[in-house]
Amino acid sequence: MSRHETHDAVEVITAKRDRGELSDSQIDWVVDAYTRGAVADEQMSALAMAILLNGMNRREISRWTAAMIASGERMDFSSLSRPTADKHSTGGVGDKITLPLAPLVAACGVAVPQLSGRGLGHTGGTLDKLEAIPGWRADLSNDAMLSQLEDVGAVICAAGTGLAPADKKLYALRDVTGTVEAIPLIASSIMSKKIAEGTGALVLDVKVGSGAFMKDLAQARELAETMVALGTAAGVTTVALLTDMSTPLGLTAGNGLEVAESVEVLAGGGPADVVELTLALAGEMLRAAGVHDVDPAERLRDGSAMDAWRRMIAAQGGDPDAAMPTARETHVVRATSSGVLTTLDAMAVGLAAWRLGAGRSRKEDPVQAAAGVEMLAKPGDPVTEGQDLLRLHTDEPERFERALAALEDGVVVSPAGTSYDAVPIVLDRVAP
Amino acid sequence: MSRHETHDAVEVITAKRDRGELSDSQIDWVVDAYTRGAVADEQMSALAMAILLNGMNRREISRWTAAMIASGERMDFSSLSRPTADKHSTGGVGDKITLPLAPLVAACGVAVPQLSGRGLGHTGGTLDKLEAIPGWRADLSNDAMLSQLEDVGAVICAAGTGLAPADKKLYALRDVTGTVEAIPLIASSIMSKKIAEGTGALVLDVKVGSGAFMKDLAQARELAETMVALGTAAGVTTVALLTDMSTPLGLTAGNGLEVAESVEVLAGGGPADVVELTLALAGEMLRAAGVHDVDPAERLRDGSAMDAWRRMIAAQGGDPDAAMPTARETHVVRATSSGVLTTLDAMAVGLAAWRLGAGRSRKEDPVQAAAGVEMLAKPGDPVTEGQDLLRLHTDEPERFERALAALEDGVVVSPAGTSYDAVPIVLDRVAP
Repeated sequence: MSRHETHDAVEVITAKRDRGELSDSQIDWVVDAYTRGAVADEQMSALAMAILLNGMNRREISRWTAAMIASGERMDFSSLSRPTADKHSTGGVGDKITLPLAPLVAACGVAVPQLSGRGLGHTGGTLDKLEAIPGWRADLSNDAMLSQLEDVGAVICAAGTGLAPADKKLYALRDVTGTVEAIPLIASSIMSKKIAEGTGALVLDVKVGSGAFMKDLAQARELAETMVALGTAAGVTTVALLTDMSTPLGLTAGNGLEVAESVEVLAGGGPADVVELTLALAGEMLRAAGVHDVDPAERLRDGSAMDAWRRMIAAQGGDPDAAMPTARETHVVRATSSGVLTTLDAMAVGLAAWRLGAGRSRKEDPVQAAAGVEMLAKPGDPVTEGQDLLRLHTDEPERFERALAALEDGVVVSPAGTSYDAVPIVLDRVAP
Repeated sequence: MSRHETHDAVEVITAKRDRGELSDSQIDWVVDAYTRGAVADEQMSALAMAILLNGMNRREISRWTAAMIASGERMDFSSLSRPTADKHSTGGVGDKITLPLAPLVAACGVAVPQLSGRGLGHTGGTLDKLEAIPGWRADLSNDAMLSQLEDVGAVICAAGTGLAPADKKLYALRDVTGTVEAIPLIASSIMSKKIAEGTGALVLDVKVGSGAFMKDLAQARELAETMVALGTAAGVTTVALLTDMSTPLGLTAGNGLEVAESVEVLAGGGPADVVELTLALAGEMLRAAGVHDVDPAERLRDGSAMDAWRRMIAAQGGDPDAAMPTARETHVVRATSSGVLTTLDAMAVGLAAWRLGAGRSRKEDPVQAAAGVEMLAKPGDPVTEGQDLLRLHTDEPERFERALAALEDGVVVSPAGTSYDAVPIVLDRVAP
């Protein structure tokens, strides 16, 4: 892709606007020209809106992804002594799975190069969570990352600026132009970074439900199938699980709170749903990496996953024995009637945690390490009037009011005897 | 509209993206914020693409137009001693009608404040045409315009920067983002300027066919009906004619060539189609201005229209007796067979004239006063092998090759006896 046929931005925009298929040459040109600044932001945003409304077919998405990869450097883990597998979640509330998962899979003999991001909006970011640990650093050089992968087997760090710079520029543009919600652009954004990162295997956790980006199963399946096809075509063994995000994962949403819960899981305890999803994803990562003879549940029980966690945190300057920071103020939400908790809405809890200070509205905002929501009951649990349902944590008590407003319709206690059908965590699996 | 509810660009974009209706408050806010620079170009272009693909209803278009008018100043011709009427054409090839029309209507007792533009692309601009006249100036102050309207009754000049600045900014953006072709935005762009200009009556010439913006009658009718409704709602008596643009108007396309043809019409001669459309539009303008007792054909015959032309040109520094500049080179296209000329395509001729130097590709390009295409036969005419069909004019002979390429499929001579159905000039009329 070093030499391009020359196109014109308006020609490419109008082709997609008029429901045409973009040629390989048009896609190569427009992605490269946008990265160089020869296509202006206002032209790319018009194209992104046309793509959102008129779609792209698989060939177009695949070429678009390849063009974004070609815009930057690629990493290479082939020198490692073990296979690599990475996991990507499309984002949910209370989704701390990466924290126990990466050291668990490392303890099973597969290296996990997990390039993560910070949170924006109601879903937390993995780096924000780990930064609640005193001393822990997200930024590593490529060399430091490689040697930690060899020594510890797991690294969770910030993606460098060299991978898919076209995607970085385009993502920032989509964020301010109402064009985030385009499946072709979501799929190519995620997959360009993961393919450029050089992982040998990839497991995608595509969330579905109120707290997720994808609100219904059909959309989520389309996104999962698109990404699995992109990964497979690029030589990365790729599998996706469609998982429930109608209620938060586990009993915590917030940075330090989620680290503590993850450590419980690594210690052999923790909430059943977090353990179940961690093991399901670990199993997929091991199979995708070609490791069939190790039982991850055993590595949780025997403490080797916890050992890998401690070494992973220490390798990046963190103190694995440090207590998590505690919030200055807490506020308890109690049940106003007796019965069954039938709804604990993921979006409501995510918004509340965000408003308590766990998340940010703009990229440059800080987050509070101790802020968040602790859930003292989960859907299906019987509750008694006056029972504690949620504990809200924040350093700034003036935040309680808006957090409570977010929870208003998100917590529903139905009369005793109301039937509650538990939703399975893993809804479906998409493989090539 | 001095105070606005506060909105957010992404909120407005996603509302239209998701096929929602924009509220009055959202429209007021986004147009004002864009004009002030608080909404960025990349946000407005995404919104423009969403409008293009998802449409706006009449209320939204009307509010959008009002917001664009409110972004700038309004002119006022109520101090004039006679009624005012203006004409706007959506643009065609060889469309010099404004030149004979404005002085003709002035000679009938109605003042014509014609704010015009320069050409971009294959259709020429009225100001470019008049600038072929030695000494003629397009830029007038508002005061000079008013006094010329009172004294001469007709003025054709450049629109000042104070009218609908939101439209100027938005039009430049649409031009580079593939969002020109949105009927709600075309209608509001035209009508915001015409309503702000303060004319009492307006006649729209909506062109249909290969050389026009609107390729089919249904689209053109939708645009015409939208604009007539906007004008009527704003208190401007507005009528539209849908007119044919499958073949060029008259026998010339090019700046100086069209001035010469216009002077022939004012002298009582000229091509039949140009005379017919000039008289049809003059009749509409007079009726819309409430003048029912004057026959414009008589004012052509008695020389009073020519007098008005000479005074109008002289008032803006032009020499009405100056010869039009002639091109350094000409090239004749001859018939390669005998029969009937069945196609002389408007777009092909427009492109050829543009490539000969009559038009510009970028706003800052100059145009040649003498370049263009002279048509020596029109559709329906019998032709003999070797007969001259077109004469191309340019100062730069290296331009002939690409101009001839543009004409390749646009000139068709069919075997003698092939039937040719003449297309009427005026296809339909849209009134409130």
